[in-house]
Amino acid sequence: MSKVKVLAFSISLDGFGAGPNQGLETPMGEGGMALHQWFMKTRAFRSATGHGGDDAAAEGGAAPSGDADASGDSGATAAENPSERFARDAMSNLGAWILGRNMFGPVRGPWPDDEWKGWWGDEPPYHVPVFVLTHHKRAPLEMAGGTTFHFVTGGAQEALARAREAAGGRDIRVGGGPSTVRQYLAAGQIDEMHLAISPALLGRGEPLLAGIDLVAGGFRVAEHVPTADATHVVLRRG
Amino acid sequence: MSKVKVLAFSISLDGFGAGPNQGLETPMGEGGMALHQWFMKTRAFRSATGHGGDDAAAEGGAAPSGDADASGDSGATAAENPSERFARDAMSNLGAWILGRNMFGPVRGPWPDDEWKGWWGDEPPYHVPVFVLTHHKRAPLEMAGGTTFHFVTGGAQEALARAREAAGGRDIRVGGGPSTVRQYLAAGQIDEMHLAISPALLGRGEPLLAGIDLVAGGFRVAEHVPTADATHVVLRRG
Repeated sequence: MSKVKVLAFSISLDGFGAGPNQGLETPMGEGGMALHQWFMKTRAFRSATGHGGDDAAAEGGAAPSGDADASGDSGATAAENPSERFARDAMSNLGAWILGRNMFGPVRGPWPDDEWKGWWGDEPPYHVPVFVLTHHKRAPLEMAGGTTFHFVTGGAQEALARAREAAGGRDIRVGGGPSTVRQYLAAGQIDEMHLAISPALLGRGEPLLAGIDLVAGGFRVAEHVPTADATHVVLRRG
Repeated sequence: MSKVKVLAFSISLDGFGAGPNQGLETPMGEGGMALHQWFMKTRAFRSATGHGGDDAAAEGGAAPSGDADASGDSGATAAENPSERFARDAMSNLGAWILGRNMFGPVRGPWPDDEWKGWWGDEPPYHVPVFVLTHHKRAPLEMAGGTTFHFVTGGAQEALARAREAAGGRDIRVGGGPSTVRQYLAAGQIDEMHLAISPALLGRGEPLLAGIDLVAGGFRVAEHVPTADATHVVLRRG
């Protein structure tokens, strides 16, 4: 049975999941990249984005290069940073993703053409069906490596139903942005959230939890793993 | 020159500084005590509240007993928990405090009599003048150990002016609650904040930072000290 999860979701100390004024040059909003420093240091991120042994494949702001001299090997070691486990778990046992349109790209309004294919180049790191919420029809977009972007115009519930069907019992990850996560939280449809509270202030942007009562929603703190780069918390229902 | 500080201020993972429905039995609001577990474990708290070697002096919900068998010695050791330093610093070089009325007690409306003298017994842990924001006049209340409660009916700015005068160049601590801190934040009058993000969810209550733009207010992250009990962050202006 698929669980619906929000994973490796970074928020600022002041509760924002993305900065203001998202655009081509600022895919996470202004200042938003600071939220993801913990993740971009991980081997899991670097190997998924092809930044293991070199950073030649940098493909735009959403996939900035890691340390150029760092090893791209994945796998645990005895003293590994706990962020490594969270980064790996965020990609494991996933059968489908759901993304808000802003996560897919900066294009607003009707799709002018099929030019924009996401932030991630020819082979996006998903490798499963990805359901993109949009008000504007577009034919499915098949990418290298198993990722197909499906553009869903029927709303969050249609996307979730299609994701469940596609996931084949594996988990469904709601990738964001904040407003997409909030829709599924408000509907009581998120089973688990791993949040990473990063040591950054944004001041403005999209708050993740404002107005959402997680206690009434049945969530409890299942894990609390502080690290120098971020404080990881896993919230689970039940 | 006095600085205006918010210190050892605990917030939940979902951003609340106090739970809902504050009252005599729930001085921190429902669920709010969970925010302060890190602090109540510290020697600084236990010695300030007379819970060092025993817990006989328990004096109501705001000063619950620490571990009855724990040592009351204060002072640093090589491997001390960083929370100890934050707890000590929260009480050092203070010349005056400002408290919202709910921090002083559960009484609402005009003071019926002088019966209520705060949550802290005959000798409160302040030892300096404390300015309590209220809409209702009351004569100053002199307590043992140097604490005098002054009841300020002229608003937050009057309280701050009087606190500056009383502080004699030492710092002024705005003790809370969240709405009192928010008033001074909105007025640009807080110089430093130490927040402790506790591994607890409240779901509802008083949010500390909602609608406050700390970046526009000139704050930056000066310290980030994760611990198992709470993630400490120090935010400073300038």
